[in-house]
Amino acid sequence: MTCPVSETIADIRARVARSRADGLSVALVPTMGALHAGHESLIRAARERCGFVVVSIFVNPTQFGPGEDYASYPRSPEADLEACARSGAAVAFMPQPAEMYDPPSLTVVSVPSLSGTLCGASRPGHFEGVCTVVAKLFNIVQPDQALFGAKDYQQATILRRMAGDLNFPLEVVVCPTVRETDGLAMSSRNRYLSGGQRAQAVALHESLLLAGRLAGQGERSAGRIAQAMREHLARRAPDGRIDYIQIVDPDSLADVDTVDRPVQVLLAVRLGRARLIDNMRVDAARPDR
Amino acid sequence: MTCPVSETIADIRARVARSRADGLSVALVPTMGALHAGHESLIRAARERCGFVVVSIFVNPTQFGPGEDYASYPRSPEADLEACARSGAAVAFMPQPAEMYDPPSLTVVSVPSLSGTLCGASRPGHFEGVCTVVAKLFNIVQPDQALFGAKDYQQATILRRMAGDLNFPLEVVVCPTVRETDGLAMSSRNRYLSGGQRAQAVALHESLLLAGRLAGQGERSAGRIAQAMREHLARRAPDGRIDYIQIVDPDSLADVDTVDRPVQVLLAVRLGRARLIDNMRVDAARPDR
Repeated sequence: MTCPVSETIADIRARVARSRADGLSVALVPTMGALHAGHESLIRAARERCGFVVVSIFVNPTQFGPGEDYASYPRSPEADLEACARSGAAVAFMPQPAEMYDPPSLTVVSVPSLSGTLCGASRPGHFEGVCTVVAKLFNIVQPDQALFGAKDYQQATILRRMAGDLNFPLEVVVCPTVRETDGLAMSSRNRYLSGGQRAQAVALHESLLLAGRLAGQGERSAGRIAQAMREHLARRAPDGRIDYIQIVDPDSLADVDTVDRPVQVLLAVRLGRARLIDNMRVDAARPDR
Repeated sequence: MTCPVSETIADIRARVARSRADGLSVALVPTMGALHAGHESLIRAARERCGFVVVSIFVNPTQFGPGEDYASYPRSPEADLEACARSGAAVAFMPQPAEMYDPPSLTVVSVPSLSGTLCGASRPGHFEGVCTVVAKLFNIVQPDQALFGAKDYQQATILRRMAGDLNFPLEVVVCPTVRETDGLAMSSRNRYLSGGQRAQAVALHESLLLAGRLAGQGERSAGRIAQAMREHLARRAPDGRIDYIQIVDPDSLADVDTVDRPVQVLLAVRLGRARLIDNMRVDAARPDR
């Protein structure tokens, strides 16, 4: 079982137009391929919401910095098309870079006040690349709904804001993170982990659960919660190098000192070649499950 | 005779949707009001191209710098609605600032490489404000065509690039500058001119004609052409303060030293309260008419 492929902007637009003429609503699931169960859950959610689901598969060069893993980013087109088909996608939009960036985009879409912190601090230009390519995909596919995963919390926050600020006529839907049975958030970059690193990687999610537990027990100091997470990671993921652990306002992404309202706890940890991220909403008002 | 008004995003979208359902194509003419014969020519051109013409009238605060004329920019809504009606507009979209910017846009659309020169050099942030509000208008109205005047050459160049780069599903149409009988380019800001200043203002267009004449006579030095324009302005508009005179590549807006191909000649001159701009294509290959 495989999924039809569209390689050009003209072709995907024609397919979308035919489906609209048939009365179908349209969903877009933007991905960089190397699809895993998290992507499949997005595609299934899209199919439940809309009659025609477009999955874009495009490793976007402009969101990778120099020295990042653009060239080596996992690519598995055949497996991706099978995943698209079994999850309910109607078509995979798989443009070559030249279809998207010839001529190169001189135009930049950005949300500066949400992009300098968290992942943006160590990946300058990353979210400009993300916003710009997603704005292009929105205009190419013109979906009614666009679905993103909560694992990339900052990205989802920025894109929801971008869509609202620019009045894109669509709904941004953010779906829950899908996890391995031990709690590790699904990510295409998990493929980079060796066996030993994979065992340590579970410490990210554990540290988030710890943060929730502490807040639920009445700990209000974001600094002490972060410190406890740091110590947990040092113990359980000794090969990990922490990029950041931050406790922020869920909308503004501004750092929070006192956990007296719902906050978002986020972290990024380098483990071997992989840079892993995860996050969790923590509500001070009630104990974590 | 007046024109129906739409004040909300929901209402203008509903009107556009009804017209589309009736099989009409849709044109957008974005303006800041204070409509003059140049705007009317855009509206008429739009009506010749599309069945349903939306004129947006919105003095966009984010494209004015501190100390610029946002508060005093001319506003003439009743006359504007008459102009819309007699030129063939179907509806005027006249949102209040809060309809467009509550919450404020954290998202910025920009074309940095085309925005730092010419008017962008003396109006930092201006073209970011223009690009962002036009992206919003494109997404609100979702027109098939959007029409802009050639008088604002840099703006038209930037917006055409933005629309293409971001794959907006519409055509950007740039229409010729409309001039007073003595050659002064129509502009809402001409209202700022006193009688004496108005007489001097014609020197802008004269200096452009001079540039064309010199190039047509074989002058290839952009520097000498600009110098001749400068001298002409000093003589004919002694109260004018030149902001810039530049001879650039028509697409990249990069300065040109040798006029051995078609170039764009642009200038901005402050005259009393008014900052006037004008421009002309100059082709080295044949004498100016």
